[in-house]
Amino acid sequence: MADLTHLGADGAAHMVDVSAKADTAREAVAEGRINMSAEALEAVRAGNIKKGDVLGTARIAGIMAAKKTSELIPLCHPLMLSKIAIAFEFEDHGIRAEARVRLNGPTGVEMEALTAVSVALLTLYDMAKALDKSMVISDIRLLSKTGGKSGDWHA
Amino acid sequence: MADLTHLGADGAAHMVDVSAKADTAREAVAEGRINMSAEALEAVRAGNIKKGDVLGTARIAGIMAAKKTSELIPLCHPLMLSKIAIAFEFEDHGIRAEARVRLNGPTGVEMEALTAVSVALLTLYDMAKALDKSMVISDIRLLSKTGGKSGDWHA
Amino acid sequence: MADLTHLGADGAAHMVDVSAKADTAREAVAEGRINMSAEALEAVRAGNIKKGDVLGTARIAGIMAAKKTSELIPLCHPLMLSKIAIAFEFEDHGIRAEARVRLNGPTGVEMEALTAVSVALLTLYDMAKALDKSMVISDIRLLSKTGGKSGDWHA
Amino acid sequence: MADLTHLGADGAAHMVDVSAKADTAREAVAEGRINMSAEALEAVRAGNIKKGDVLGTARIAGIMAAKKTSELIPLCHPLMLSKIAIAFEFEDHGIRAEARVRLNGPTGVEMEALTAVSVALLTLYDMAKALDKSMVISDIRLLSKTGGKSGDWHA
Amino acid sequence: MADLTHLGADGAAHMVDVSAKADTAREAVAEGRINMSAEALEAVRAGNIKKGDVLGTARIAGIMAAKKTSELIPLCHPLMLSKIAIAFEFEDHGIRAEARVRLNGPTGVEMEALTAVSVALLTLYDMAKALDKSMVISDIRLLSKTGGKSGDWHA
Amino acid sequence: MADLTHLGADGAAHMVDVSAKADTAREAVAEGRINMSAEALEAVRAGNIKKGDVLGTARIAGIMAAKKTSELIPLCHPLMLSKIAIAFEFEDHGIRAEARVRLNGPTGVEMEALTAVSVALLTLYDMAKALDKSMVISDIRLLSKTGGKSGDWHA
Repeated sequence: MADLTHLGADGAAHMVDVSAKADTAREAVAEGRINMSAEALEAVRAGNIKKGDVLGTARIAGIMAAKKTSELIPLCHPLMLSKIAIAFEFEDHGIRAEARVRLNGPTGVEMEALTAVSVALLTLYDMAKALDKSMVISDIRLLSKTGGKSGDWHA
Repeated sequence: MADLTHLGADGAAHMVDVSAKADTAREAVAEGRINMSAEALEAVRAGNIKKGDVLGTARIAGIMAAKKTSELIPLCHPLMLSKIAIAFEFEDHGIRAEARVRLNGPTGVEMEALTAVSVALLTLYDMAKALDKSMVISDIRLLSKTGGKSGDWHA
Repeated sequence: MADLTHLGADGAAHMVDVSAKADTAREAVAEGRINMSAEALEAVRAGNIKKGDVLGTARIAGIMAAKKTSELIPLCHPLMLSKIAIAFEFEDHGIRAEARVRLNGPTGVEMEALTAVSVALLTLYDMAKALDKSMVISDIRLLSKTGGKSGDWHA
Repeated sequence: MADLTHLGADGAAHMVDVSAKADTAREAVAEGRINMSAEALEAVRAGNIKKGDVLGTARIAGIMAAKKTSELIPLCHPLMLSKIAIAFEFEDHGIRAEARVRLNGPTGVEMEALTAVSVALLTLYDMAKALDKSMVISDIRLLSKTGGKSGDWHA
Repeated sequence: MADLTHLGADGAAHMVDVSAKADTAREAVAEGRINMSAEALEAVRAGNIKKGDVLGTARIAGIMAAKKTSELIPLCHPLMLSKIAIAFEFEDHGIRAEARVRLNGPTGVEMEALTAVSVALLTLYDMAKALDKSMVISDIRLLSKTGGKSGDWHA
Repeated sequence: MADLTHLGADGAAHMVDVSAKADTAREAVAEGRINMSAEALEAVRAGNIKKGDVLGTARIAGIMAAKKTSELIPLCHPLMLSKIAIAFEFEDHGIRAEARVRLNGPTGVEMEALTAVSVALLTLYDMAKALDKSMVISDIRLLSKTGGKSGDWHA
């Protein structure tokens, strides 16, 4: 049976050793969405038009969260990310977020892209929650990863 | 049309004023789930049996993330949380996480519960990602909130 | 001669005791400005028009920095800020930032307002630095403080 | 017209891609000053004589802040700084701070030096604020940067 | 047999509920020591004489660490500490550190005092480690706690 | 007489320059122990059996603290740690913790291993403190370091 890489032979959690892995160019892209009521979605759209501060705030939150990934996920390595970008797309019933993260380093940046998406969506939730308490964040998943020994992967 | 509470009259984002709100006992409960392949789910289950470090690690990550909410979500107030608990449940195709957060304070703790759930699930993702790159985190939502002027709410 | 409140009788720095001070409603307002070349100022203005992400990013940085004040200034008390707002004003040779912070608590929030202004201006500097390396941040000062035993003060 | 490097083609803020930039030896030096009343300046001087804890505290605050730059300035890259030093100089009407930061890395450390200076001066402000509420922090600027593709620059 | 308060009925770790506990004045005092070679101790003493930056740096590190306790110890509550002071004493074979922490709040501050002592001693270790790799940090313990329902306690 | 490396010629503390040091493979191992009453030790043992959350929580706290070392110890360099593992051993009168940290980098990771041990032990203290207020954390020391110009060292 397959084993979890983050557990040692004795079953204890550890931060896995990447010291023997060479630095390579890596990229990960992740997405997720928040569904909300028509009223809340309209308020986000309208609020954003004035100054752009709704999506802009969520974008900055996501970028800053990507940099905090190793503080949040206990077994993630600290990494010197070389690029973070977040895009939003209005959908019929909500908003889709996509994060793209790059690194020249010894391990992948999937968790950084997923964390950026998660916190960007939580920030949108926070801004709209007075209007809709039934919002749902979902579909948080990896779209692609490139670079590294395990090769490229696309959803 | 409804307006977003986090935008001022000029459309600029701000941390809303709660200085006139009295401290009351508040609780929020949130949930979310991660779906994964049978192989990954089996590895989590097996890995957890030995020392409990799989769910235990995700639980601690979620608790610590709840305390970091105001560092992650730009317009959240810093709050002195009085309780945080996280529970997991194995499902047929994944794991459900539920977070319960309490506060005696001037504003609700929905974002804290949702952040705890999100980071707990991201931590499970991290531990299983070598086995399954197609996992999906979804259904992150509020189950209930009690306390505060706006009254109780249940999903 | 006057003594510094942050030094004990033996000259050692400490975080002063506020345990005997009652919670009162407090507010502090601080300002500062960044001067830049006409070219850089024009680029900020133009860049901001598209999505508002220039001033919006600086505003969020300032709000988040206010919440980090006690992590940055060694002898500042952790405080549960109840409001943070930041405004910008284009001037002939740069941009003026103003931060307003509120607290119901045992000590003033001057440092929080000053920190918010400083980091908001540093963020503008960061965004424009490819265009102008001679920018200067200056005039960071308190405009007013209200509440607390020492009474109100206005510049 | 010149564009801001931190905005994408669509006007959205992002952390710019430095993955194609080679690591080079870089240094940045920044300065700033705080002006204060004669009474406050004398108290800082006297307080510092006993144990050195006034300037020493500001120095440590500045060094620690340099390491936090990418947490404070949203679009700054995390960097493994290789040296940070901060010096103070008493002037007639205040104190001048100078920070020197080094890195072997893919991007400059101007923001780190400017952040170190800003937080060191805010810390001095904090220690003297009971004596003088009219202090002003100003003249925060880059003195020089060396290394990197854009070459050396001196104020 | 006695149970651990931080485990629920199901054995899962949680942050215990203090929402029903009233705020009271609390204080905790903790101590610890670092033993080092005569050469290292002499260097610390000599280095400290010049500017006070050796003990001063350790003192600031301890104070800032006390404020980070709930970020470091997973099940500690965030608390708005009202006082932190750290003292050092040269001994024959090392240095003793003592931390005193105060709070008006719902739970004790023992962990904050112990964390302050631990990090202050680690900082001394860091500064002297080039001279002595055999240093030992020990005797970290609580000296007293006052306030709270469980009453006063003295070692 | 020997000088402290962290003080400049003028006695001021600084983060020493490692920009000229090459990256090499480094490892540090540190240990420490906590002594507690038979009753508290038994409760830890029993509590741990159910879900493993006692030692598991302390392990995660230690791993996360190692990543925070440069935020806690003022003159430590930020480092991209490549491995962190923590082991515990029950002893007659307490628990021994051992941390192993690896890096490919320009400076040693002794402080990271010592910080991991310290915070892991403080976390055990926190979980058992309701049962025993006389616990003592001691014997925190380096066991070995390998790599780097100064060569290998074993206690």
